[in-house]
Amino acid sequence: MNSKMVLYITGKILSIVSLLLILPVAIAVIYGEINPLVSFLFVIGGGLLLGTLLVTLGKTRNGVLYAKDGFIIVTLVWLIVSVEGALPFVISGEIPSFVDAFFETVSGFTTTGASILTNVEALSKSMLFWRSFTHWIGGMGVLVFVMAIMPSVSDRSIHILRAEMPGPVVDKIVPRAKDTAKILYLIYIGMTATEIILLCLGGMPIFDSFVHSLGTAGTGGFGIKANSIAGYNSYCQWVIGIFMVIFGVNFNVYYLLLIRRSISAFKSSELWTYISVVLGSTALIAINVFSMYKKIGITVRDAFFQVSSIVSTTGYSTTDFDKWPTFSKSILLGLMVCGACGGSTAGGIKVSRVVILVKVLSRKLKSMLHPRAVLSIKMDDKTVDEETVSSVAVYAVVYMILVVVIFLLLCIEPYSIETHLSATLACFNNIGPGLQLCGPANSYAFYSDFSKIVLSFAMLLGRLEIFPVLLFFSPSAWRKAG
Amino acid sequence: MNSKMVLYITGKILSIVSLLLILPVAIAVIYGEINPLVSFLFVIGGGLLLGTLLVTLGKTRNGVLYAKDGFIIVTLVWLIVSVEGALPFVISGEIPSFVDAFFETVSGFTTTGASILTNVEALSKSMLFWRSFTHWIGGMGVLVFVMAIMPSVSDRSIHILRAEMPGPVVDKIVPRAKDTAKILYLIYIGMTATEIILLCLGGMPIFDSFVHSLGTAGTGGFGIKANSIAGYNSYCQWVIGIFMVIFGVNFNVYYLLLIRRSISAFKSSELWTYISVVLGSTALIAINVFSMYKKIGITVRDAFFQVSSIVSTTGYSTTDFDKWPTFSKSILLGLMVCGACGGSTAGGIKVSRVVILVKVLSRKLKSMLHPRAVLSIKMDDKTVDEETVSSVAVYAVVYMILVVVIFLLLCIEPYSIETHLSATLACFNNIGPGLQLCGPANSYAFYSDFSKIVLSFAMLLGRLEIFPVLLFFSPSAWRKAG
Repeated sequence: MNSKMVLYITGKILSIVSLLLILPVAIAVIYGEINPLVSFLFVIGGGLLLGTLLVTLGKTRNGVLYAKDGFIIVTLVWLIVSVEGALPFVISGEIPSFVDAFFETVSGFTTTGASILTNVEALSKSMLFWRSFTHWIGGMGVLVFVMAIMPSVSDRSIHILRAEMPGPVVDKIVPRAKDTAKILYLIYIGMTATEIILLCLGGMPIFDSFVHSLGTAGTGGFGIKANSIAGYNSYCQWVIGIFMVIFGVNFNVYYLLLIRRSISAFKSSELWTYISVVLGSTALIAINVFSMYKKIGITVRDAFFQVSSIVSTTGYSTTDFDKWPTFSKSILLGLMVCGACGGSTAGGIKVSRVVILVKVLSRKLKSMLHPRAVLSIKMDDKTVDEETVSSVAVYAVVYMILVVVIFLLLCIEPYSIETHLSATLACFNNIGPGLQLCGPANSYAFYSDFSKIVLSFAMLLGRLEIFPVLLFFSPSAWRKAG
Repeated sequence: MNSKMVLYITGKILSIVSLLLILPVAIAVIYGEINPLVSFLFVIGGGLLLGTLLVTLGKTRNGVLYAKDGFIIVTLVWLIVSVEGALPFVISGEIPSFVDAFFETVSGFTTTGASILTNVEALSKSMLFWRSFTHWIGGMGVLVFVMAIMPSVSDRSIHILRAEMPGPVVDKIVPRAKDTAKILYLIYIGMTATEIILLCLGGMPIFDSFVHSLGTAGTGGFGIKANSIAGYNSYCQWVIGIFMVIFGVNFNVYYLLLIRRSISAFKSSELWTYISVVLGSTALIAINVFSMYKKIGITVRDAFFQVSSIVSTTGYSTTDFDKWPTFSKSILLGLMVCGACGGSTAGGIKVSRVVILVKVLSRKLKSMLHPRAVLSIKMDDKTVDEETVSSVAVYAVVYMILVVVIFLLLCIEPYSIETHLSATLACFNNIGPGLQLCGPANSYAFYSDFSKIVLSFAMLLGRLEIFPVLLFFSPSAWRKAG
């Protein structure tokens, strides 16, 4: 491990993230919220101090960065930033318990949107803004953001991009990792701004438009109302619903559209599978719940909104889907596991992995019939190399093992199996609301501190796609030798 | 496909299985049950006729048997035998609905033990015996039994053994598949006889001892009392509990013991993992439920009995474990998925596969730290070849996909998610009772015919380890070319 480099980069990132807290400070000034203002300033000061200390300890801005350093840096930064982000809540007293504040902040950065708040409307404006802003930062990646704005720390910073970006294969869009990060963030900012404008035009207050657009862009799902999006008009619900689907698409598609290579952009089989899943699930659920709503317009809108919210792992709701029939709820559970496209801000296993897994199954059957045939798996007319295929299969296996482990750890508490299982899937896949006790009409407040910490790690495991976090806690990753 | 060979072997097996129905005929004679007697004789006649017809159509007893022929024969035989086994119930009118009788028989042959009977005690003795006898036949394998007693049909009948025996790797114990089948059945008969004697010595009536020993040996779980094993004395409960664990062990271990190679027998890491899982789960559950029982003896006995019943995928019960706390129930759900050892009569993913999966995870982590290292997976001091490793990973992936598909198909009906999920796991893993509506105190009678057929196929998929059944329904398996 190159520990000096790790210290240097971690310190640098901590300082930059601390500076991001100036935005909620501005909100606090606008709305004249003294107590939050002081808390934010306090944390900014502490963060800059610690950041500078780490940079000084590391001293170097060069040297070789190993693959495993990438994993360690990513996990370390996410842990530190989550602790830092939790402090304003604790210091201001708006979320007095540190574990609660940590859960809420991890839920924010990992774009989960699971909340321990029983009355979200009691929070100050600047805290609500900070909560939603963590979604936006975490969506595209804390470190990717830093890479985009700071002078290149290393030629091998692609290791960081790989470790932080979701999906089975991370391509650099352009040769330099730094430029890739910049392009990704520009697309991200552009789309977020478009949503804010569209929501304002629809009559949503400016503050609400900002908060919900940040939450949609990161596919997070923190709202500012007890009933999430249900209180806004139909137009705003459609805008948010459509943008949730949009932010679940691989950002490469937008880049290709930007440089006018629309043929390559629309050749992505992941994109079409994703769109088919969204439309198919919406249709099935709409038919299933029609008798509850009677009106076709509201049925389709609520079905589409909930499907796009769950498949993009956002977690906004316009209705209490825990009251839907079992068939619709089970489709939502399936969508939770699947998630949206790789290379987007969404969680879950990712559509591309699911497609590869189904192809692995069909190849297995073919190879049993023709034992001597050499069969390769193709996607978008390209052969998927065997390393990717096997790593996708291993990912699915590890995913399954972790679901079982997290579920069993929650089961120490006496709530129903449906509550525990949906909490596991909702946090691990970075969705937010589950079913029953942790359903959209409730919060995670009822869980013990132990379960909240388990779920916080589930969210981190899900957001960082398992391996960086597991490696962080394996002793051999910390040995000196590369 | 060698269709003549397929017809010939299928016909031969059908005839032999028809002859097995002479045993329940004997029971019907002993207890003077006229109606069942006639039904059995009718089915024996029909089965022999159809069997002879198929043998005549096939005509040949030689020729090449392809790997895919093995899969087709196995699935075909299991389907035909399940239909045949269901007929006595329908003809005698004891289970009037064919779908119900088919479900019950598939549940018998696949050693699941899930029942649609709401009052099992109403059945005649000979039908109860036949029900439990299907467990015993299906446990070690319908075709393996036929191979053991009929003159070798082909040198390549190992394909049949492979397709029917559970576990990631099936070794021939001795060079010829036929001899392997014989040795397996001799061990099986010996152990079943031992259990019958021990139960009789403990004061259980002879008929009950037979039925429960057949159910234990096949790790099936059909009982003859509404409260399963709860009505028998503590000694009998311990005997059945211990034998359930014994029949969950890889039969190779017993063969090695038989030929006095106890050192190799006890070197099996699967065996020790299995025993640790049983003892560990028993301890955890005993601690968790102690407050419900107050007495240490009963607590340990009930905890051990339920753990051994679920891990060996038998499904007998001495208590309504659906009333246990969530923690204990979730351990049982975990054991359902895991199952017992490969090469036993039990279902589930199998301990050896779980061990390999965990090693795949740890290798993945190591390889991320040391990208250039070549790492192999070892078990019992032997390197597991990469083909086995990848096929275990693929098996786990396909297993997961099928759990989701079966679960979603059940969810068309309006019962709780916990009911549907536990029904999926209990049938797919060949256990029997699930939780809530299909818990140990209830039956599967409430499901619609559609769901019963889905669950019947789930049981077949589980028992035949997925691929033979999937291949049977893939069109390319039926093409002429090899």
